[in-house]
Amino acid sequence: MKAFQANLPVTLDFEAGAIRHMGEKVEPFGKKVFLMVDPFLQGSDLVAQITSSFAEHDIEYLEFYDIVPNPRHTTIDRAVELVREAGCDVVVAVGGGSAIDSAKAVALVAVHGGYCWDYTERLGEVVTRPQSRGLPLLVVPTTSGTGTEATPFAVINNPELGLKCAIVNPFIYPDVALVDPQILVSKPARLTALTAVDTFCHSLEAYISIHCTPWVEMVALESIRLFATDAQRCVEHGDDVEARARMAFASTLGGMAIASAGVTVSHALGQPLGAMTDAPHGGTVAASTPYVIGWTLPVCADKFARVAEILDPSTQSLTEMERAQRLPGILEKLFTTLGVTDTFRSYGLQEHQIDDFAQTVWTSFNQDLACHPKKITSKEEVADIIRMCF
Amino acid sequence: MKAFQANLPVTLDFEAGAIRHMGEKVEPFGKKVFLMVDPFLQGSDLVAQITSSFAEHDIEYLEFYDIVPNPRHTTIDRAVELVREAGCDVVVAVGGGSAIDSAKAVALVAVHGGYCWDYTERLGEVVTRPQSRGLPLLVVPTTSGTGTEATPFAVINNPELGLKCAIVNPFIYPDVALVDPQILVSKPARLTALTAVDTFCHSLEAYISIHCTPWVEMVALESIRLFATDAQRCVEHGDDVEARARMAFASTLGGMAIASAGVTVSHALGQPLGAMTDAPHGGTVAASTPYVIGWTLPVCADKFARVAEILDPSTQSLTEMERAQRLPGILEKLFTTLGVTDTFRSYGLQEHQIDDFAQTVWTSFNQDLACHPKKITSKEEVADIIRMCF
Repeated sequence: MKAFQANLPVTLDFEAGAIRHMGEKVEPFGKKVFLMVDPFLQGSDLVAQITSSFAEHDIEYLEFYDIVPNPRHTTIDRAVELVREAGCDVVVAVGGGSAIDSAKAVALVAVHGGYCWDYTERLGEVVTRPQSRGLPLLVVPTTSGTGTEATPFAVINNPELGLKCAIVNPFIYPDVALVDPQILVSKPARLTALTAVDTFCHSLEAYISIHCTPWVEMVALESIRLFATDAQRCVEHGDDVEARARMAFASTLGGMAIASAGVTVSHALGQPLGAMTDAPHGGTVAASTPYVIGWTLPVCADKFARVAEILDPSTQSLTEMERAQRLPGILEKLFTTLGVTDTFRSYGLQEHQIDDFAQTVWTSFNQDLACHPKKITSKEEVADIIRMCF
Repeated sequence: MKAFQANLPVTLDFEAGAIRHMGEKVEPFGKKVFLMVDPFLQGSDLVAQITSSFAEHDIEYLEFYDIVPNPRHTTIDRAVELVREAGCDVVVAVGGGSAIDSAKAVALVAVHGGYCWDYTERLGEVVTRPQSRGLPLLVVPTTSGTGTEATPFAVINNPELGLKCAIVNPFIYPDVALVDPQILVSKPARLTALTAVDTFCHSLEAYISIHCTPWVEMVALESIRLFATDAQRCVEHGDDVEARARMAFASTLGGMAIASAGVTVSHALGQPLGAMTDAPHGGTVAASTPYVIGWTLPVCADKFARVAEILDPSTQSLTEMERAQRLPGILEKLFTTLGVTDTFRSYGLQEHQIDDFAQTVWTSFNQDLACHPKKITSKEEVADIIRMCF
């Protein structure tokens, strides 16, 4: 057993209907909330339930809706100013990955000062890395996919420099991730499918990562088991609160898995493709996965076989190698059932862009490539993989 | 999905050979260690390795070996006095459950003051329940069984009152559980078997507990998977560091499982039997488990079937009920292979003691009975269960 470390500093709090008790949940942490909410939720019943609960507990709050898909460093800095001016002592985020990542950054910078961008990891530059927590932080995920509620990462966008970099700090974990499956029932089927597939890819990629540990194996495979039983149910019966709860747990476990082991080739390709084409994240990651598995198979048959058996128990009687070889086909069928059928080409990638795309992956996502169990040694090899997935 | 909470405030740090770097591990937490060690390790190479590493890092230390199987409140109070007199700023425990439980109590009381016994949960009495952490605490388990490195409990003995009560506090978790499988290879086969069986029972009992959650299900079943693959290996090939590491992880997972879901009937019977007869804890718990499973089967067949399939994959083709019915036999065979074959009677329990035994279980272990999935409504029923296990 290789040396490994594991912990879960965030308290996961799964409860249907929990947001109606947000005041009670926040009370131990502070009296004045900086409430960061995805803008599409402005004026919603969800926000009204939260703020009424605050009022019942004499908790003041300042609402902030300036959340964009890729949180900008300048937005974080402006939010920090508001937090300080208003004297907020606790941050609450309600929304998808961007709202939660924004709040993680705001809570940290509000206490430790300076500018958000200085906190991001940039090779060869001076990085502000606080050694203690920021403001108390409670997050309420409204999509199940990113798992950011259970990671020490916040991805920050600097459009002036054309860079997206991450804050990576154990003190950035939320104090509480409040997962209320009841608020997930209204998530549209398409988004449900895309985020479920993203969750699956997090868990699969962390499981095959060279940094996989016994801890990661446990959480990743449990996440995949839940994906197998509940993803389709959530897409077809969005109002099934039980299935929503299990997929939400799968998503959190996926976050825990990548927090320890990182992601691998599919995310290294999917992330820049999303930036190039505006294609949805879950779709870009799923598009390459069956091909990447086929290419990686020789070095990872045992793990692929185990995943194949979870997704399709009828493969139990096959040999390990046969089961592993079935995995790409099992996934193509499953993704099709979920309605996630796009390819790199259908997302708008053009053949003449492949070399530039490969260059971006090679330079900006090398840390993800380095986690992959099959070694990738040049950008030409990346271009070959992209062509294979095209 | 019932509402549930989960976290893991302790950092698990698994590393073969880690104790040679104890100085480095302690450095972020303090400069003067209160080193609490099981007395049988006094003068051992293990302690020498730890103290040399402290010396290399200019870390002072005060050794304390007054650890007894059931930590006494007066011993904790005396240790706290020593900590305060010497100005120690971090506690390190090396040993089994008693050393670690003692250290958990010392670290808490040293900061929050008063007497240890006042911190224990006693029905209807005033209890000191601190709302913040004690001294930083690093623990090095030398047996794999109790899982106390991953629980918020410390059991304290008050022989004057004839009572054993627990401190239950989220701030009592160690900061770091340093698990070094290399120091486990010298554990004798008999102790290895008994602690492995205890681990299994923790996981099984938490899994069937009425407080089982999706989190508990994940960690308990993973613990049982590791027990299935590695317990016998550790008993027969004690020097297999890989197998030792996996069983140590199983033990920690078992601790996490009971931290959330508690134990059930087998522990409720096993604990007082151990006190009555001086029989080893793992053995007393194992002795009743097959019978308790048989008695509980009607309400819990799905879970027993799942455990049976993990322990004996050849049962896969059976129906759920058939698999569940096989579990007691599978366990009897497995425990026999491990050399754990004693019964209540062979541990010295006499028939005329059964009513008193049942009374103790009914009054002092009612919280464990209350976790059991099949309801127990009287001490007469407890006596019937004891007779069944006799």
